[in-house]
Amino acid sequence: MVDGEEVRNKKVIFRDYVNGFPVESDMYLSTDNTIRLKVPEGSNGVLVKNLYLSCDPYMRIRMREDEDPTVITSFAPGSVMTGFGVAKVLDSGHPKFKKGDLIWGMTGFEEYTLITTPESLFKIEHTDVPLSYYTGILGMPGMTAYVGFHEICSPKKGEYVFISAASGAVGQLVGQFAKLIGCYVVGSAGSKEKVDLLMNKFGFNKAFNYKEEHDLNDVLKRYFPEGIDIYFDNVGGKMLEAVILNMREHGRIALCGMISQYNLDQHEGVNNLMCLIYKRVRMEGFTATEYFPLYSKFLDMILPHIREGKIAYVEDIAKGLESSPSALVGLFSGRNVGKQVIEVARREA
Amino acid sequence: MVDGEEVRNKKVIFRDYVNGFPVESDMYLSTDNTIRLKVPEGSNGVLVKNLYLSCDPYMRIRMREDEDPTVITSFAPGSVMTGFGVAKVLDSGHPKFKKGDLIWGMTGFEEYTLITTPESLFKIEHTDVPLSYYTGILGMPGMTAYVGFHEICSPKKGEYVFISAASGAVGQLVGQFAKLIGCYVVGSAGSKEKVDLLMNKFGFNKAFNYKEEHDLNDVLKRYFPEGIDIYFDNVGGKMLEAVILNMREHGRIALCGMISQYNLDQHEGVNNLMCLIYKRVRMEGFTATEYFPLYSKFLDMILPHIREGKIAYVEDIAKGLESSPSALVGLFSGRNVGKQVIEVARREA
Repeated sequence: MVDGEEVRNKKVIFRDYVNGFPVESDMYLSTDNTIRLKVPEGSNGVLVKNLYLSCDPYMRIRMREDEDPTVITSFAPGSVMTGFGVAKVLDSGHPKFKKGDLIWGMTGFEEYTLITTPESLFKIEHTDVPLSYYTGILGMPGMTAYVGFHEICSPKKGEYVFISAASGAVGQLVGQFAKLIGCYVVGSAGSKEKVDLLMNKFGFNKAFNYKEEHDLNDVLKRYFPEGIDIYFDNVGGKMLEAVILNMREHGRIALCGMISQYNLDQHEGVNNLMCLIYKRVRMEGFTATEYFPLYSKFLDMILPHIREGKIAYVEDIAKGLESSPSALVGLFSGRNVGKQVIEVARREA
Repeated sequence: MVDGEEVRNKKVIFRDYVNGFPVESDMYLSTDNTIRLKVPEGSNGVLVKNLYLSCDPYMRIRMREDEDPTVITSFAPGSVMTGFGVAKVLDSGHPKFKKGDLIWGMTGFEEYTLITTPESLFKIEHTDVPLSYYTGILGMPGMTAYVGFHEICSPKKGEYVFISAASGAVGQLVGQFAKLIGCYVVGSAGSKEKVDLLMNKFGFNKAFNYKEEHDLNDVLKRYFPEGIDIYFDNVGGKMLEAVILNMREHGRIALCGMISQYNLDQHEGVNNLMCLIYKRVRMEGFTATEYFPLYSKFLDMILPHIREGKIAYVEDIAKGLESSPSALVGLFSGRNVGKQVIEVARREA
């Protein structure tokens, strides 16, 4: 590869807005594009080679047409999909970045991307951990778990913590953060394999497969006879409703995501919000991006834990850009076990 | 009336648990009781003559059988109803109270009550304001408005504030507290008369009659083209759902009450909680009683405002204990204009 060379650039194109569950054919691979591996004259962008791409549940929201554009931008039909990723800088028009730097941040689902807003990228300084981690435990999902648990939930030692979608990128970390400060932690997931991970790999106190439970209220009462102090909600809907019934006084609910609702045309109603008054519960929505200024503080905390093996982390890595549609769609049937990543290319020497 | 005399004691008896809208016959007046106007030997209770009784929406919840007894106690069928009131001490077994003291706190819907937990009563020290105010602006509803707005909503000057059931005991005060710190305040109420009060008596910026609006989302967009920073929710249900759609980023919702839901067997679901994530909104339930330790601080703030005429207050006073069933039932059709009080007896010289 020669500097400034014109090369093929495979892309994952978003075909059109999606109703119901997304299917692989909502995206397609376009192979007849080229890109010049050079930042255009006068641009302060960076030209990157994508290494790892992150599949995150929030991306389903971007497949809808009707969301409020002031808070979330839909994908543009016929255009390349975008998302978080890890990439290597091939050329830079920005003083903060130079050729050879590794970065993570918003990029394209394609081989090469010209990132025109490099201010929002993070330079990767620590490469003694797998680079793919910067799509997860060391990236947006890690920050989501960290700020959602520590900033939104105000946890205290000994409190009872429940996490839904607990083996996912965010849930597995929230559970381990909660264990680190001495909470009692229960997680729900959608398969025996995931429940085993929660118990044996991530050290949760208890875990259950929600698909095997007929009555969510009953199962929560069983695992939390004293009630729930903190609920980290990744799923919304009926699980949220059942949890609200089981909250303790002064409980806190962090609304992180609602994956059970993303594919529904009409979201399920939660009909027991009055319990929030009786129990004086706080429920708060948040997004990690707002807390990105805390990222270096977060890294200082988590890197030693990873290096010392005090925090486990499970990824589900699909190989090749071609696997993107299948990997993304799999998130919504829960096919992934752990953080879903796409390996586009390996870091070159 | 002679000390220790045995006298007639009319009572309002709760007949049985209520489904749907309460009707007057869910309560009845019992006139064949007597009481000795003396605290029993060895008791640390106080024997009071009730002067004003408070009709509050939360009392509807106590008419249900199935509420969680750890957080709210249902009325006992066949027993006297209880609630907040203003009373005069006729005899006391408690060192904090003596004959002739005026108090406010939990008492019975009857002429005389032996209060066996006088620790929770407040002694009334300021009598240059109407005594009935201690059922409202200077009592539980006043504290509800104060802590709900200042502690739960963290208001800032210039913010956009919406209040439902805005002419009620709590709503009228929240609106005026918000105006005092320079917020833009809109209220909803259920009649033209109440809307006029909001505009002309309480100084709201805008007000509307929700019964005349077909589309709550539309009307909120009209009054809040920039969105809502703070929602003080007294009604729940469809209004809460419409407000959530119109919240601004980092908005706060204080869940105070949900009067629209109290008479429904199956509460309405709120189906757009995902907006709380996009907009990073905090929603929190609270009850004033937890904040009663702040009462004297509250009094120091509000009494000067009342004396200087800076805060207006509207009461709807029904005369005689006999009016209790009608006054209580009227709350749920919105018949009262302002704080609903029952005058059982006037203060004697």
